[in-house]
Amino acid sequence: MANTIPETGLQLFSTVTDDGHLELALKQVPVPAPGEDEVLIRMEAAPINPSDLAVMLSAADSDSFTAGEADGQPLARAAIPEAAARFTAPRKGMPIPIGNEGAGTVIAAGGSDAAQALLGKTVALAGGASYAQYKVAKARDCLVLPDGTGAEAGASSFVNPLTTLGMIGTMRLEGFEGLVHTAAASNLGQMLVKLCAAEGIPLVNIVRSEEQVALLKRLGATHVVNSSTDGFMPALIDATAETKAFLAFDAIGGGRLAGQILTAMEQAALRTLPANGPYGSTQMKQIYIYGGLSPAPTELTRGFGMKWGLGGWLLTPYLQRVGAEEVAKMRARVARDLGTTFASKYTRRITLAEAVDPANIAAYNRKSTGEKYLILPQG
Amino acid sequence: MANTIPETGLQLFSTVTDDGHLELALKQVPVPAPGEDEVLIRMEAAPINPSDLAVMLSAADSDSFTAGEADGQPLARAAIPEAAARFTAPRKGMPIPIGNEGAGTVIAAGGSDAAQALLGKTVALAGGASYAQYKVAKARDCLVLPDGTGAEAGASSFVNPLTTLGMIGTMRLEGFEGLVHTAAASNLGQMLVKLCAAEGIPLVNIVRSEEQVALLKRLGATHVVNSSTDGFMPALIDATAETKAFLAFDAIGGGRLAGQILTAMEQAALRTLPANGPYGSTQMKQIYIYGGLSPAPTELTRGFGMKWGLGGWLLTPYLQRVGAEEVAKMRARVARDLGTTFASKYTRRITLAEAVDPANIAAYNRKSTGEKYLILPQG
Repeated sequence: MANTIPETGLQLFSTVTDDGHLELALKQVPVPAPGEDEVLIRMEAAPINPSDLAVMLSAADSDSFTAGEADGQPLARAAIPEAAARFTAPRKGMPIPIGNEGAGTVIAAGGSDAAQALLGKTVALAGGASYAQYKVAKARDCLVLPDGTGAEAGASSFVNPLTTLGMIGTMRLEGFEGLVHTAAASNLGQMLVKLCAAEGIPLVNIVRSEEQVALLKRLGATHVVNSSTDGFMPALIDATAETKAFLAFDAIGGGRLAGQILTAMEQAALRTLPANGPYGSTQMKQIYIYGGLSPAPTELTRGFGMKWGLGGWLLTPYLQRVGAEEVAKMRARVARDLGTTFASKYTRRITLAEAVDPANIAAYNRKSTGEKYLILPQG
Repeated sequence: MANTIPETGLQLFSTVTDDGHLELALKQVPVPAPGEDEVLIRMEAAPINPSDLAVMLSAADSDSFTAGEADGQPLARAAIPEAAARFTAPRKGMPIPIGNEGAGTVIAAGGSDAAQALLGKTVALAGGASYAQYKVAKARDCLVLPDGTGAEAGASSFVNPLTTLGMIGTMRLEGFEGLVHTAAASNLGQMLVKLCAAEGIPLVNIVRSEEQVALLKRLGATHVVNSSTDGFMPALIDATAETKAFLAFDAIGGGRLAGQILTAMEQAALRTLPANGPYGSTQMKQIYIYGGLSPAPTELTRGFGMKWGLGGWLLTPYLQRVGAEEVAKMRARVARDLGTTFASKYTRRITLAEAVDPANIAAYNRKSTGEKYLILPQG
């Protein structure tokens, strides 16, 4: 190995301070030595996913950060609104390493065969603390990228790919035959379009502009409905009736959309099923909120009978639910199709130092559909 | 039997008319003859439950009925709001027999042993069309009331008793240890207080006045919180933490209450469980909406992590889920405790003709807590 291992490296931390601020700070930390079954990875690429932002920025307003400095390294601070203090209190005073996933090169390894076998390989991994120049991980947690796949191409091998696989896995476990997806032009949404096409699963994509309709149609999507048009509800009912998509994954959370989807599902169901008196159809209709692009309250008119469910959905409990063997299959599937179904696109690449620049914080938290930032820790 | 069987009897029907009205009408209909395994019951008492009102009045405004007459019998009519027309369309032109449950005397029986054995007995039954002077039912659907229990005391042997048993059954099936109940001073709520006390199940009762607090305390309730006081949320969090009641049944549906309960459950859970990053506690929190006392939209702030569910709950699917053997046990339990745990109280008794009086319609639909109407079809 031509790599020399430095004593220290840069790493990003998010802290709720004692005076009620959110501090995003770059720190120089010691580079740890790998244990027997561990490897040391020089991190080369790590995406900023919406799920990262929830930890990074907590309840702080991303437009209100100001720049600062500590120990010669840049930081950014913003006040946490009073109303959210109750929720952020448990984090107070604890610098939290951030970044759920990323990829890099194994530059040192513990003595075990599994660890040694990874030396020099480009690997992807999840499990946190990926916004760092160096990271130690268990050998078994590393996904060896296929030959010719670089760290950038493998940086998003876990969160979005496993989430899309988890969505269709949930659909099968719960006996549904099709999916509705919101914010469907997102990176994850585009991946879901490709995955559902590959699996022959009917998918209703909900987007909010004609540009996004065109984008998904170009990817081969059959059903794309635009929630910003007058004809949204009739189009959604038609698409739901055609696909029998009575399970939805909603990235938005707030506002009326989840309720509108349930209403459309019920109307679609009533085209073929009789109503059960005043209780609506006997078709089960389920929505899982897996993101929170809109922090507004969720509003349900409940004009969709009594056979429905709404709840939160997270990847980790799903992976626990299906067990290690199934997760291994999912990972192998991702590695195989990383260049096609599970390919991610990035619209901007920034360094660790740039990630604490207030202007960049405001930009990457904007969550514009299709926008995706990649951190290059060695950049 | 001293009973003579008339040719016809009075029966209540609810119809959505072709011109978009809801018509509640008394009709003179032929008295049917019982088949081999059936009995003819002279109906003597039938309660008006909230679930009956949903079919009886549909989307009509109960304050807008006007009196009329057809074929010499009284009726009442009200316009159905335009916005609800889509939901009531499937019922158009079909007179629907109403009344979910009731009790009376078996005055004729088919030839089977089971049917003959019921002759002269006072029986309770569910299954619809109970707002009638005469009703034919399968012998096996009749619950023979214990000696000394009259039709009035047995009229509500199904809907509320089985619903309360279904709530605690659901709690056990889904692995919860306690219950939260809203509109808890209702007839059903009072029954649930007695049942949970008998079963040793922790119950948090939510009511909206001090009178209702006092009423439930007199019944022996331990945890009663008043949602109309300033201290509601802290009191609800305390009660939830103490009882570990992470499953709620909500009769109200609309407004912010369901979300407040989820928020209180999450705060209660966080007293003993750590937060899972930005995703809240790992404690599953579930609310089932089983009524719709408030037709307002349901509003959720989602400040309760990601491990939660909200959905509709109905008795019939629950009974199908647990199967015939369990239902038979539930029925036997109800018959045994009809004078104690499952006793109902009525605040007014009306005849079938009085049930179509516009002033009474407005009154019995008011759903004031604790108010309950009983129809006396022979009155």
